[in-house]
Amino acid sequence: MKDEKDIIIENEMHHEVSPAVIKRLPRYFRYLREIIRMGKTRVSSAELSKMMNVTASQIRQDLNCFGGFGQQGYGYNVNYLYTKICEILGVGCGFRAAVIGAGNLGTALVKSPMFEKRGVDVVAMFDVAPSLIGKKVANAKIYSADELEERLEEFAVDIVILTLDKEYTLETAQRLAKTNISGIWNLTGIDLDLSEHGIAVENVHIGDSLMTLCYEIALNDKK
Amino acid sequence: MKDEKDIIIENEMHHEVSPAVIKRLPRYFRYLREIIRMGKTRVSSAELSKMMNVTASQIRQDLNCFGGFGQQGYGYNVNYLYTKICEILGVGCGFRAAVIGAGNLGTALVKSPMFEKRGVDVVAMFDVAPSLIGKKVANAKIYSADELEERLEEFAVDIVILTLDKEYTLETAQRLAKTNISGIWNLTGIDLDLSEHGIAVENVHIGDSLMTLCYEIALNDKK
Repeated sequence: MKDEKDIIIENEMHHEVSPAVIKRLPRYFRYLREIIRMGKTRVSSAELSKMMNVTASQIRQDLNCFGGFGQQGYGYNVNYLYTKICEILGVGCGFRAAVIGAGNLGTALVKSPMFEKRGVDVVAMFDVAPSLIGKKVANAKIYSADELEERLEEFAVDIVILTLDKEYTLETAQRLAKTNISGIWNLTGIDLDLSEHGIAVENVHIGDSLMTLCYEIALNDKK
Repeated sequence: MKDEKDIIIENEMHHEVSPAVIKRLPRYFRYLREIIRMGKTRVSSAELSKMMNVTASQIRQDLNCFGGFGQQGYGYNVNYLYTKICEILGVGCGFRAAVIGAGNLGTALVKSPMFEKRGVDVVAMFDVAPSLIGKKVANAKIYSADELEERLEEFAVDIVILTLDKEYTLETAQRLAKTNISGIWNLTGIDLDLSEHGIAVENVHIGDSLMTLCYEIALNDKK
């Protein structure tokens, strides 16, 4: 008879987590953090279902994907799940990030606990405004955009976060394509694709959810 | 024989746009804006497919949902589609918004073209910091959070945008629950549910896409 450890190892050996599940993992990550903060060590799929507003069967299916087997009557081991999700999402990788654009959005992000929570270290910011260069936001010093390539190399930056103006996005992306960075978190609103250069890009369109909200409101008004 | 107009009207009479399609509409909105800006009046599903990195059959399926029938060899009427999507998403409703929290994030949003593009008018901001009260960001004056309820009423605000600190979120939500607003665009990171009070909420977790990016990078590194 196999014990629990065997089952998990076996599952890891041929685990293939689907993109749809990956998209949902950051939500599990957030809720599990919350549960850990509450001092709980076990959680049932029913409890998670209620917290997350997802069906319990969806939760069981998702967590089974990477060996998160709940025990009937005992629920899930919260720390195991959290560690596992962090591992899959690369939270423990110690990624180093730099923010291009030290305006309000860049500053808001760097000051927020967002990066620390996810194990990402913001090591530098870049801007073109002489009045900002040399200043610090949280622990990140602001460098001139002219020094972009050399500083990215010096600080061994993995992720570049784009919060600069739309009009400079393409030009900056062309410069980044020639560097050794691994990914771009792109908040400029201009879609980028640098897969040819081996750089992963996540194009964020924060305004999309504002439109979904407007849709819901318009729908409620019609009722 | 039915002409095109008949088909569209018939379709509108019993159209039911699924939530999954609704979630995708803001993307169509963005791309169609781009196409209009390029001066094009017709676009084929193949062209849209290439621009949006979605299969042409998915596009045809999505657009058929609300009477966006392309003509073989002619493609879609760009302006018709754009107008239709705006209508569904409530872009023409003239929603009025107020931002609670005049920090870096709130300021970045109000200064961005995000609201204007979507036909949402930001009429006021609120903060607790005496140094900010009375100042203006773009066209929005910053009021004391003490005046929240009366000002929301005075300006007939439909949407409240939350960019304030996590710790004040619940208390603020309780106050908002008693007002006449229709929706909350919640960027605080604390999930809210005010459906009992007839208020639609869109909880935004911008950091989720940062984690998806970290996952992709960790995956590429393993290759």
